[in-house]
Amino acid sequence: MSTTDAPRGRRSGGRAGRQAARLAAVAEKVPFITRSLTPVELVSEEGLATIEHNADTILETVGIDFRGAPDALELMRSGGCDVDGERVRFPRGLARQLVQATAPREFDQHARNPANTVHLGGTATVLAPAYGSPFVRDLDEGRRYGTIEDFQNFVKLSYLTPYLHHSGGTVCEPVDLPVNKRHYDMVYTHMRYSDKPFMGSVTHPLRAQDTVDMARLLFGEDALEERAYILSLINANSPLVWDTVMLGAAKAYAEANQAVIMTPFILAGAMSPATAAGAATQTLAEALAGMAYVQLVRPGAPVVFGSFASSMSMQSGAPTFGTPEPALVLFALAACARRLGVPFRSGGSLTASKIADAQAAYESANTLQPTILAGVNFVLHAAGWLEGGLAMGYEKFILDLDQCGQMHALAKGLDLSPNGQALDAIVENGPGQHFLGTAHTLANFETAFYRSNVADNESFEKWQETGSLDANRRANAIWKLMLAEYEPPPIDEAKDEELREWIEKKKASFPDSNV
Amino acid sequence: MSTTDAPRGRRSGGRAGRQAARLAAVAEKVPFITRSLTPVELVSEEGLATIEHNADTILETVGIDFRGAPDALELMRSGGCDVDGERVRFPRGLARQLVQATAPREFDQHARNPANTVHLGGTATVLAPAYGSPFVRDLDEGRRYGTIEDFQNFVKLSYLTPYLHHSGGTVCEPVDLPVNKRHYDMVYTHMRYSDKPFMGSVTHPLRAQDTVDMARLLFGEDALEERAYILSLINANSPLVWDTVMLGAAKAYAEANQAVIMTPFILAGAMSPATAAGAATQTLAEALAGMAYVQLVRPGAPVVFGSFASSMSMQSGAPTFGTPEPALVLFALAACARRLGVPFRSGGSLTASKIADAQAAYESANTLQPTILAGVNFVLHAAGWLEGGLAMGYEKFILDLDQCGQMHALAKGLDLSPNGQALDAIVENGPGQHFLGTAHTLANFETAFYRSNVADNESFEKWQETGSLDANRRANAIWKLMLAEYEPPPIDEAKDEELREWIEKKKASFPDSNV
Repeated sequence: MSTTDAPRGRRSGGRAGRQAARLAAVAEKVPFITRSLTPVELVSEEGLATIEHNADTILETVGIDFRGAPDALELMRSGGCDVDGERVRFPRGLARQLVQATAPREFDQHARNPANTVHLGGTATVLAPAYGSPFVRDLDEGRRYGTIEDFQNFVKLSYLTPYLHHSGGTVCEPVDLPVNKRHYDMVYTHMRYSDKPFMGSVTHPLRAQDTVDMARLLFGEDALEERAYILSLINANSPLVWDTVMLGAAKAYAEANQAVIMTPFILAGAMSPATAAGAATQTLAEALAGMAYVQLVRPGAPVVFGSFASSMSMQSGAPTFGTPEPALVLFALAACARRLGVPFRSGGSLTASKIADAQAAYESANTLQPTILAGVNFVLHAAGWLEGGLAMGYEKFILDLDQCGQMHALAKGLDLSPNGQALDAIVENGPGQHFLGTAHTLANFETAFYRSNVADNESFEKWQETGSLDANRRANAIWKLMLAEYEPPPIDEAKDEELREWIEKKKASFPDSNV
Repeated sequence: MSTTDAPRGRRSGGRAGRQAARLAAVAEKVPFITRSLTPVELVSEEGLATIEHNADTILETVGIDFRGAPDALELMRSGGCDVDGERVRFPRGLARQLVQATAPREFDQHARNPANTVHLGGTATVLAPAYGSPFVRDLDEGRRYGTIEDFQNFVKLSYLTPYLHHSGGTVCEPVDLPVNKRHYDMVYTHMRYSDKPFMGSVTHPLRAQDTVDMARLLFGEDALEERAYILSLINANSPLVWDTVMLGAAKAYAEANQAVIMTPFILAGAMSPATAAGAATQTLAEALAGMAYVQLVRPGAPVVFGSFASSMSMQSGAPTFGTPEPALVLFALAACARRLGVPFRSGGSLTASKIADAQAAYESANTLQPTILAGVNFVLHAAGWLEGGLAMGYEKFILDLDQCGQMHALAKGLDLSPNGQALDAIVENGPGQHFLGTAHTLANFETAFYRSNVADNESFEKWQETGSLDANRRANAIWKLMLAEYEPPPIDEAKDEELREWIEKKKASFPDSNV
């Protein structure tokens, strides 16, 4: 088993090394972003009320299909829904009531290292790597299928950076491992190569249960009853369908008191109407139904309102990212989540570009800025995403981390302390005198401005002398250096041994399969 | 004189041609953005009041130097300031009173083509090209000094795009022309190669006067008394200094009732304290003094509150762009301008990168998004800026235009009309049915989502088949096609002749000089 290779570290140097070291020295280590900024509201109260009213109309008149899940249908009926075949209709207001009655407004997701426990909801924003791509890309080898080694690499990089707070889930698909067993290696990698919180398997209810069982082994048999250690991504089958696999996985987690993100994944124009308000309304309806289901499975189980919305090229049908319309959906739904009183997941550093070029960066920034300004609580896909999620990019990952760092600074808002106001510094300095050597500047030298480890701010001449590198080439040096310097977090060796034995036994108990 | 070459157009084709044509067909032609979005307020009322109070303290206790301008000092004394040598101190509240008493809250800048007249202030946002770079860059020839041909090219491109509303000013320095005469060619190019509004020369009071005289020739002797035709950029010499050239140029324009943007140009850490609130406070103080001066020169003359703020690398002293701190300065000062009651200029698509790579795009997007969300009224540097303003990039220009187009869509906010809500479309469609062929989707097909002419949203395989082009290569094809298709706007030939003769006579009346 590949995960039994003990992780090793070695040291390297060079310009990128100095940059990375400088970054590490300066970056303030926080377990998550605590926003001082009040969330930006781009939609009026009246507009939000309209979206909510329409979502209720959808739930009442059309309803949601819960497919291939008789137990879910029975549960929804017991909660007060009208169930007709697989169609579940909610009397007006019921879905909201079910959620508000028992879902926690905010909760912690615990990490193996308690210093890395994250908070979900309120003023907290948690940044996590991209999720789910079958391919990886780097400058040296181009695009290729992901492997467990790539998976480990991205877990290591997420562990090393101060700008991601979460180890994520399927950071890339380890396509070299059998489909029906790779979840063991993925979950183990998160547990062993990182000590940040992580996400569980959702591709089958039994794999969700395996994740729960592994967490019980690692954290203790009863620990999960008291605390959320696992956060998992449950996607709707839009429009207006929750399917048997996702309902089953959500159930396994909720029954174990573990957190799920109920996420309508919508390509507007195909899986919802082609308008931002329409996509937002449908998302709210689907998410409400999903969250109500979770609360009926286990009242009080932690649940996150998720939204993934993209626009599409109305010519080719291809998904498009970083465009204005999904940003408007995001602002609207972040506000709806606050009104509902549950944590909200959306946004990231999304792009349709195949490479980490200007298109990728514009689109990613145009997604990430609204994500932070709107006050999103959990941000999947904050780093690495390329090609509409089909590829995880090593250089893109590094470039996005830098942006995640900037968002830490932005979220602090304007510092209006006396030092921030700097009135004395201006008054004492006087007209025409520069501020480079003043006491105030020297006192603020280290922390005055966000410091990028990948941007080149030198003169043209200096940039040319050092090889006229573009941002990708600089990022290439940085991820290599980070991996070379990686050292695994400590772990109880007996516990690690127990985990690995359990996995070996499980793997041996049924044949490999790629279905 | 190079400007006597009659502009010519010819047609071309190819994939980029079809893209550009498609763009032109779809893009809604508006003379400026009218924002439906309420401006985003990131700073509390209390915080803004603190900044205003501190700015007044600076004006009262330290004051501002008005250097080498005895007439300006006399004017400020007559307005109630305490003048001590070249130092001008404002009794608390005076600068604000002088501005609010007579400066227009909003005004129009008129264009040769009345359909292109722009509004400055209120809910209007006007996007203009980058300004002032001595170098230009394109993929074919790399970086080189700008020429009048480059200048003409950027005026043509700005004229052609529906996403810039303004022809700008020094779109690049025509370094092939003598310093003391190039303003004639620049102003003529704006007048002849475009019919959008433009900016005047500020490098000497006499060159400002020349701009005014040329505008009188073109628009009529008395027209300027009634309307603003020229908008010009007057920079402070921060900290706390206005110098003789800038004061003289501002005076020439204000006396002719033409608009000026009074802009503290601040590299925080060098020209102001290294904190965002400190940079904002100093900017407000300097701008207030400058705007008060303009109102004393001619009460009621149109004036814009300008701010250009960048952070710096505290290691190398190099300016840095697209970082969080200048965005916070921008949000704070946009709010201060609204409270003062004058139009506000700031932001753009700024970057320190030498090329249009991922760094350039992240930094530009991180500047442009706050610019639009904060409700900035006039946006210089919205397209083309590279290398901290030292280079104007052809490809960067095209990539930025696409972002400007996206900002048109973002500024509209969430459409909550019945069509936008799309409730019937969702209700009629039902669970599991895609929306691609529905009546609602077909009705919204053309306008549903912002349509980029430069993003590649195709599959990896299709992208590879068409040459694996990055965003720069696609942009390269687009600007060439646009220039090939350029045709000049019509002009009264007698008027054009008169203008050119006037310029020839002026040029012949004194020797060339590069000072």
